[in-house]
Amino acid sequence: MGTNGRMINVGLVGYGYWGPNLLRNLVASPGCNVMAVCDSSRERLALAKERFPTLSTVTEYEELLSLDSLDAVVIATPIFTHYSLAKKALAAGKHTFVEKPIATSGREALDLLDSAERQRLTLMVGHTFLYSPPVNKVKELIDSGELGDICYVASSRVNLGIHQPDVSVIWDLAPHDFSIIFFWLGEEPSKVSASGRAFVQKGLHDVAFIDLDFPSGVVAHVQDSWLSPSKRRQMTVVGSRKMVIYDDTNLEEQVRIFDKGVAYIDDPDCFGKHQLTYRTGDITTPRLEPLEPLAVELAHFVDCVRTGARPKTDGFHGLGVVRALEAAQQSISNGGGKKVVQPLNLDNVLADTIALTEDLSHV
Amino acid sequence: MGTNGRMINVGLVGYGYWGPNLLRNLVASPGCNVMAVCDSSRERLALAKERFPTLSTVTEYEELLSLDSLDAVVIATPIFTHYSLAKKALAAGKHTFVEKPIATSGREALDLLDSAERQRLTLMVGHTFLYSPPVNKVKELIDSGELGDICYVASSRVNLGIHQPDVSVIWDLAPHDFSIIFFWLGEEPSKVSASGRAFVQKGLHDVAFIDLDFPSGVVAHVQDSWLSPSKRRQMTVVGSRKMVIYDDTNLEEQVRIFDKGVAYIDDPDCFGKHQLTYRTGDITTPRLEPLEPLAVELAHFVDCVRTGARPKTDGFHGLGVVRALEAAQQSISNGGGKKVVQPLNLDNVLADTIALTEDLSHV
Amino acid sequence: MGTNGRMINVGLVGYGYWGPNLLRNLVASPGCNVMAVCDSSRERLALAKERFPTLSTVTEYEELLSLDSLDAVVIATPIFTHYSLAKKALAAGKHTFVEKPIATSGREALDLLDSAERQRLTLMVGHTFLYSPPVNKVKELIDSGELGDICYVASSRVNLGIHQPDVSVIWDLAPHDFSIIFFWLGEEPSKVSASGRAFVQKGLHDVAFIDLDFPSGVVAHVQDSWLSPSKRRQMTVVGSRKMVIYDDTNLEEQVRIFDKGVAYIDDPDCFGKHQLTYRTGDITTPRLEPLEPLAVELAHFVDCVRTGARPKTDGFHGLGVVRALEAAQQSISNGGGKKVVQPLNLDNVLADTIALTEDLSHV
Amino acid sequence: MGTNGRMINVGLVGYGYWGPNLLRNLVASPGCNVMAVCDSSRERLALAKERFPTLSTVTEYEELLSLDSLDAVVIATPIFTHYSLAKKALAAGKHTFVEKPIATSGREALDLLDSAERQRLTLMVGHTFLYSPPVNKVKELIDSGELGDICYVASSRVNLGIHQPDVSVIWDLAPHDFSIIFFWLGEEPSKVSASGRAFVQKGLHDVAFIDLDFPSGVVAHVQDSWLSPSKRRQMTVVGSRKMVIYDDTNLEEQVRIFDKGVAYIDDPDCFGKHQLTYRTGDITTPRLEPLEPLAVELAHFVDCVRTGARPKTDGFHGLGVVRALEAAQQSISNGGGKKVVQPLNLDNVLADTIALTEDLSHV
Repeated sequence: MGTNGRMINVGLVGYGYWGPNLLRNLVASPGCNVMAVCDSSRERLALAKERFPTLSTVTEYEELLSLDSLDAVVIATPIFTHYSLAKKALAAGKHTFVEKPIATSGREALDLLDSAERQRLTLMVGHTFLYSPPVNKVKELIDSGELGDICYVASSRVNLGIHQPDVSVIWDLAPHDFSIIFFWLGEEPSKVSASGRAFVQKGLHDVAFIDLDFPSGVVAHVQDSWLSPSKRRQMTVVGSRKMVIYDDTNLEEQVRIFDKGVAYIDDPDCFGKHQLTYRTGDITTPRLEPLEPLAVELAHFVDCVRTGARPKTDGFHGLGVVRALEAAQQSISNGGGKKVVQPLNLDNVLADTIALTEDLSHV
Repeated sequence: MGTNGRMINVGLVGYGYWGPNLLRNLVASPGCNVMAVCDSSRERLALAKERFPTLSTVTEYEELLSLDSLDAVVIATPIFTHYSLAKKALAAGKHTFVEKPIATSGREALDLLDSAERQRLTLMVGHTFLYSPPVNKVKELIDSGELGDICYVASSRVNLGIHQPDVSVIWDLAPHDFSIIFFWLGEEPSKVSASGRAFVQKGLHDVAFIDLDFPSGVVAHVQDSWLSPSKRRQMTVVGSRKMVIYDDTNLEEQVRIFDKGVAYIDDPDCFGKHQLTYRTGDITTPRLEPLEPLAVELAHFVDCVRTGARPKTDGFHGLGVVRALEAAQQSISNGGGKKVVQPLNLDNVLADTIALTEDLSHV
Repeated sequence: MGTNGRMINVGLVGYGYWGPNLLRNLVASPGCNVMAVCDSSRERLALAKERFPTLSTVTEYEELLSLDSLDAVVIATPIFTHYSLAKKALAAGKHTFVEKPIATSGREALDLLDSAERQRLTLMVGHTFLYSPPVNKVKELIDSGELGDICYVASSRVNLGIHQPDVSVIWDLAPHDFSIIFFWLGEEPSKVSASGRAFVQKGLHDVAFIDLDFPSGVVAHVQDSWLSPSKRRQMTVVGSRKMVIYDDTNLEEQVRIFDKGVAYIDDPDCFGKHQLTYRTGDITTPRLEPLEPLAVELAHFVDCVRTGARPKTDGFHGLGVVRALEAAQQSISNGGGKKVVQPLNLDNVLADTIALTEDLSHV
Repeated sequence: MGTNGRMINVGLVGYGYWGPNLLRNLVASPGCNVMAVCDSSRERLALAKERFPTLSTVTEYEELLSLDSLDAVVIATPIFTHYSLAKKALAAGKHTFVEKPIATSGREALDLLDSAERQRLTLMVGHTFLYSPPVNKVKELIDSGELGDICYVASSRVNLGIHQPDVSVIWDLAPHDFSIIFFWLGEEPSKVSASGRAFVQKGLHDVAFIDLDFPSGVVAHVQDSWLSPSKRRQMTVVGSRKMVIYDDTNLEEQVRIFDKGVAYIDDPDCFGKHQLTYRTGDITTPRLEPLEPLAVELAHFVDCVRTGARPKTDGFHGLGVVRALEAAQQSISNGGGKKVVQPLNLDNVLADTIALTEDLSHV
């Protein structure tokens, strides 16, 4: 269900650190009219009005939702409020965009998904990287078979700061890694484990090393840290035919393709035997379009609301990320054991809720 | 027991890939006379004689060991032969240098250690990095307190190739990481786990992600791979006061010290509360002496044999590395569970053998 | 003469590519009230009003200058208009800030300088780099003697584009290099030569190699290009005691100090003789304050107008840069001969105009 | 004239810094027998014998030349001796390989060339870079037209040390730049100028900035220095269709091809007018064969001697480099004026000698 293509009316919820970026892009988005911005702080709202003087502002969320002609909300508030705000928006019949992660547990995410599906409302999560040119380039390379069979993905997302006061580094940084990796591989992990250390704040890990096993046999490794001397945003994909490094900090060369690999050749000295040989070819940096991912993402949301199309980062994607985050957090809190992430029977998703994760050691 | 300072007679065992480097350095080592080189291949021995025409060569190990005036042997043969060759050398009363890792199991390593200790013979393992200027510089920074409390160590040792036909990447590359990390921290891990993938050769992992927990609370993470698009030899040490990156591929700047950290300051808005602040100061690349680690290592061996001093990389160090390798290999083979590495009661080492590792899940 | 510290009224002239940056910083500058923005394009003015709704706008420069309470103008228009606009502003008794370069010839620059000096008005040129932390850090290192005697400065300022339609790469990029180098060395060149090639546009060089000789004996070399595969903004200062690389594209490490040098030592083999030895010490990246140079620059202009202080990048500095640009352009147009830049007798500057550059071959 | 393909007998002259590399490669070169090594120092000869015990050695050059069966000499002695040693070798009827530069003046180089041509002897100069895979790759890219029309070449060859006691940095480093550039462009410069500074040693420039104008209109710029904080060996070739960076210190990626350029397009707003547009495509690092240039070079010499083929780096190439060096040195010594390098009338080369360079100011 969409709006049959008419211009849509959107309300922005939350004008803190990230809200101004969303507002700027929503205002510039064709097909979208920003009806109002909602924030509990009048000071923050004053900043929004200074920037866009004709903008309406409200301090009460209920007031925003009660606007009859409002089609959709865009939620950019602290993580722990995502579920209740999105739940109310869906209950009020509004299409809903929530910043990542969609909720703080699989159970909450599933409930939002259930609400949206029942009412045929658009539910989209702000996993912005999936709208960036380098991430989509790597997806193309994988799907076209150019990389061959995928062996593993390794990701490093480290720098100094900024410590969150209420969640570990896993909930802060791993949503990016997980979203990108699940998108690339087209699957969600069957097992997750994590170890690390809570050094600065008691009980909140500031460094995490996460292992993911996928049903296909592919493995992934994620290193997230708020305690590291230099910024690093690098993901490596190793395939049987080619390998890729995606470095988000190297703006000139975000994606590099290495025509390298290992192959078996017949052993010339011994009939019937094989030996390994290493192949090294060209390295290519493909040209990428200079698009702003956030603009693409919001245009996609507006488009999905208008046409009823399913978003690329829909509730199922958001749910998959949250379930893996939950499993990783349980593992690191318990000292590193592997967690099985039960496959969801999507036929049953709308029928009833299910237990989402279970300790491997109990299986 | 040493040789009271007289020149010592050394035999080199194995003239394969690494042997020529050892021979060149032994010949140039003061206080050391190379009596003979032993290799089962006459072709390899011919190469040695071409380089050093006056050198004696033998094809039988027993013949080498039977030389009365031989003081010591230097063993550079395939890993699976280390134990038996070293065992025979010690039995023949020869001081023994073995390339890393010292053996293929903790039990073997302990047996060699026991033999050497009982006979007061020098037993040294070729963990060469511990004789390199950058590794020693980082050790100094840690021991002097300049880095503050250590939070974690992360190591990446990846490139394309060379697959070993009989051992996993753990036994091939992790000896370097483990030896360096244990030396820096002055302790051995209490728990080890590893995951990864055996992609090219069935049953032999070519990529491994290893977690190490230390008694002090420090954690370490090691990423080793034979399947990676570009070479990386980088170790990061994060302390509460400063952080260090040691990059072995950046010859101009192997060690970089970052005067960065996180600190608590009094929250000006709220008495009795604190908030985090990030400190960023200078980055320094200290000048390092251009020493060849292998030359330093062999000179140290000769010196220990002559004076009876205990080597920096003695049998205990070699044993600690092998026990951790064994635990990591068991973990990766079993799918990633944590292994407890039991502390050795060193008083009992010479009395009897003990079980070295035990599955965490059985505790 | 200043405004005795009261808040000053400023008019911005030109709201094209650079104007919005100036406006944003002027609005945020303490002690400064933006009275009006002047641009001949109503569309551009509409953009300014959209951003700052309460702003006054005018399309006629004369209208702006006729505002009685206007203290100062900030001129950000195409280069060839700088002289006439600044001349009118000074004639109207307004303090004047002109974007770099101050004018298109030494004669024009000198005339502006003369006007400003006679009326005791502030005349400042927008050589923004002189307000940036890395450039000031290098200045400190030179002035403190830490680098020793300066041997040479080499600068590369190259990338692909953007070709100017009316001036060569010398007038577009070299103002930055010249301004920085003259500031660092505290002197202006006595000889200038340049060669290069006009490849894309007939008669307008897109690549230039410029040599500068200074009275002290120091030499400088500048490479400027609009035709280069990758962006480079790097300056090297070589001193007898230390060397510095300032890389403006490496945001994490803009200034790096190399404790390297050459020294004479007594030759141990030959009394009374000396031999060269190379010294290599630490490399240090000093921490720099994260200041925005443009904000610092405009605050400085406001401060100079209010207090009557002489700006760091005053008319004399702007004149020195323009004279060297003029000499470089003459040299490259004539095929590379050296131009002598006659020293100005500053006592006579206000008395009469002088010939500013003369061909070396005529001397 | 060659040796009709039989194995040739070679004598190596000079066993100093570079000699051991030549000897090692000559010994391994098929078709080549090293008859003797000649050096005035018995200590150096002892080192050669230690390495190759069966080698003959002589201290007198005349003794070497008097060996009847000697076909060729390879000369690796200080620059100022090249001419006289090569002259004697050619007079004795020996094919001659001389390390770069072939001589210390154009007049000497021409004389050697004349001797070799008259006697139909092979004369080759050790411009080793012309046998390296990256330099040949760039040549291919230029000759195939892939880069389009060449606009300019810029080269940086800088590091700290090693100062030569008798020649400037131009004679030490520029032979590499000149040889490579002339090979790439297929032409020699018509004008040369150089400036710089003699900082450490009086009268001997340790930093030089050299401009070269070619008959085709291409320009080149070379920066050579013994006084620089970090090593740089980088050459940029800018063409109208693509651009290349050859970085000799980046072993993994010596050649990088940038599919970038500027093009004119019709101006949509103005019929008959054009505007510039910048094109940015992929960046490619082609795979290069891991050949050792010195081995390729010496094999080529042996092959030319045996077959009578003309070497790639023959006497004409060596002469061209020396003439440009001579012009650059004259220019820098005289303060930077342009020198015209007169075209040689090759028909007359063997007839009589000619004046090789002449001051531009006298033309």
